Amino acid sequence: MTPIKMSLDDIGRLSLNAFIHNGFSLKQASAIADVVTRAEADNCASHGLYRVPGYVSAVLAGRANGLAEPTVAQQAPSVLRVDGDGGFAPLAVDTGCPDLIALARRQGIAAMAIGNTHHFSALWADLEPIVDAGLVVWCFVVGQCAVAPHGGTHRLMGTNPIGFGWPRPNGGAFIFDFATSAAARGEVELKRLSNERIPQGWGIDAKGRPTTDPAEALAGALLPFGGHKGSALSMMVELIAGPLIREKTSSEVAQLGISDGGPPPGGELFVVVDPTAFGSDARTVGEAFFKEATAQAGVRLPSARRHAARMKSRESGVEVPLQLVREIEDLCRS
Amino acid sequence: MTPIKMSLDDIGRLSLNAFIHNGFSLKQASAIADVVTRAEADNCASHGLYRVPGYVSAVLAGRANGLAEPTVAQQAPSVLRVDGDGGFAPLAVDTGCPDLIALARRQGIAAMAIGNTHHFSALWADLEPIVDAGLVVWCFVVGQCAVAPHGGTHRLMGTNPIGFGWPRPNGGAFIFDFATSAAARGEVELKRLSNERIPQGWGIDAKGRPTTDPAEALAGALLPFGGHKGSALSMMVELIAGPLIREKTSSEVAQLGISDGGPPPGGELFVVVDPTAFGSDARTVGEAFFKEATAQAGVRLPSARRHAARMKSRESGVEVPLQLVREIEDLCRS
Repeated sequence: MTPIKMSLDDIGRLSLNAFIHNGFSLKQASAIADVVTRAEADNCASHGLYRVPGYVSAVLAGRANGLAEPTVAQQAPSVLRVDGDGGFAPLAVDTGCPDLIALARRQGIAAMAIGNTHHFSALWADLEPIVDAGLVVWCFVVGQCAVAPHGGTHRLMGTNPIGFGWPRPNGGAFIFDFATSAAARGEVELKRLSNERIPQGWGIDAKGRPTTDPAEALAGALLPFGGHKGSALSMMVELIAGPLIREKTSSEVAQLGISDGGPPPGGELFVVVDPTAFGSDARTVGEAFFKEATAQAGVRLPSARRHAARMKSRESGVEVPLQLVREIEDLCRS
Repeated sequence: MTPIKMSLDDIGRLSLNAFIHNGFSLKQASAIADVVTRAEADNCASHGLYRVPGYVSAVLAGRANGLAEPTVAQQAPSVLRVDGDGGFAPLAVDTGCPDLIALARRQGIAAMAIGNTHHFSALWADLEPIVDAGLVVWCFVVGQCAVAPHGGTHRLMGTNPIGFGWPRPNGGAFIFDFATSAAARGEVELKRLSNERIPQGWGIDAKGRPTTDPAEALAGALLPFGGHKGSALSMMVELIAGPLIREKTSSEVAQLGISDGGPPPGGELFVVVDPTAFGSDARTVGEAFFKEATAQAGVRLPSARRHAARMKSRESGVEVPLQLVREIEDLCRS
């Protein structure tokens, strides 16, 4: 794959154009182009330009609403619900976030459910505006059905990521965002393409037997990270980002048989805490802990690598696969 | 260790007597005896009678307040704080729970911080009354400083358990409660006593090198479960059940040099969601998922083993080590 260097501005414009030329409203297109660009800036290629064709195909297939106008409703004194109007999560999140931040500050804790939408972006991107407001936040999304429960033999759960954010001084943040599967589907696909084996514990074959063959695991199921503990966390995400918020479980989504490569329908749950309600200032109270953690050689805080990449990308742009850029340029001409 | 059979009533009475005879108020003693008895009933010996001498020694050492009178205060419209008055968590939790349940029902989501207390019990015991009220709940506690961060060389974090509960029909529940370390300290101690090796990934020696020698790991540090993901979760617990609620981190507690074998000072954070605020009834909406999960041979839901043990214990009592019973009986005579 030949790489090509692009500035972040160019990446944003390219994504925006692809969406606009394929029936997305400017609002939907801008919100998605923003998360795509931020993913490229943070060196998370798996959530960057790579996702643009999927967003487009979901609209072209008539499955997702590129013109969606999300709306926010208060469901209880400390609970909001955003109806994504069948569009994509980034605009739904942007629409609800200011109200969510204000509500958490007023109530001390608040939750926001996003429903009737399609989630295809990284959770850290959803967390950042809330952390930047000095708040502590979790979010949860049901991913594509690909993971067998611990001890099980076939797919039941999504890759079900968990995100957590904690504010730090000077705009810094402690943010993590990881799939509750041992490995992402993409990682297993890369191993298959390069004819490598996968480690024990990543997957099982179609008969439920442990395998180190990536093709067999892709035909069978991935496994949760961390054995029964990761499996329990994955089940938790399935419940709270699925039925709790009146959205489908990943296995119910799998039964829809979606094959356009775009984001599945689903929702997202946010829980936001205002540290001042607990009498503390999260921007400073964690610093002694972080200092002690990073004093140990070999310890890296979860968001450190992304932040370093961001600084570099803003200065000198990022490398992206030329073939992917050509594919997206073609979408702008269709 | 010779076992002796005891009824749950006898276990409750024995614990209660030990506390009463050592300067605990009836309220403190009853609340702790209840969680001790429930742990024995659920076959969680590590949180049962085994903990009674530690509770007593913390009071005899003048460190914990056996006469504590916890109080509840509202810190924000959806946030409560219980001041444990230097006593133990069970009474502090019991004191705050009715208000927490009422607040979550009124607001849709609520949080409760417990501070100025000593936590020594299983999290599932804290979750059950809230789940029984039809609510979804998380809780978090900073454990004893014993765990090195992923990639690190020495102790920084506690065993930092995470608990989650989801209500099911007919008083059932999906509840998990696990340490974010790969293994509990007690499990490593048992391996040492039986001259066994521990699996790779459980611990490192005092120089930060991987070890399968339990004695070396006990002198060094345990490791988080699930590599960098479990490590991130452990850091999260350290932050939200420590400084966020104005309690110490596990390494700050370690610096106190407590050696009486009793529970360390610390707090607990609860987050409670009322499913009806999201338009769903958690007692029923998860059932299709659980049915699908347990249809797979080999899949066991997290609380299944405890619930089976409970049914059996109520009928026929439990076996406990005679030596431990004698030790607690001695505490009743002192």
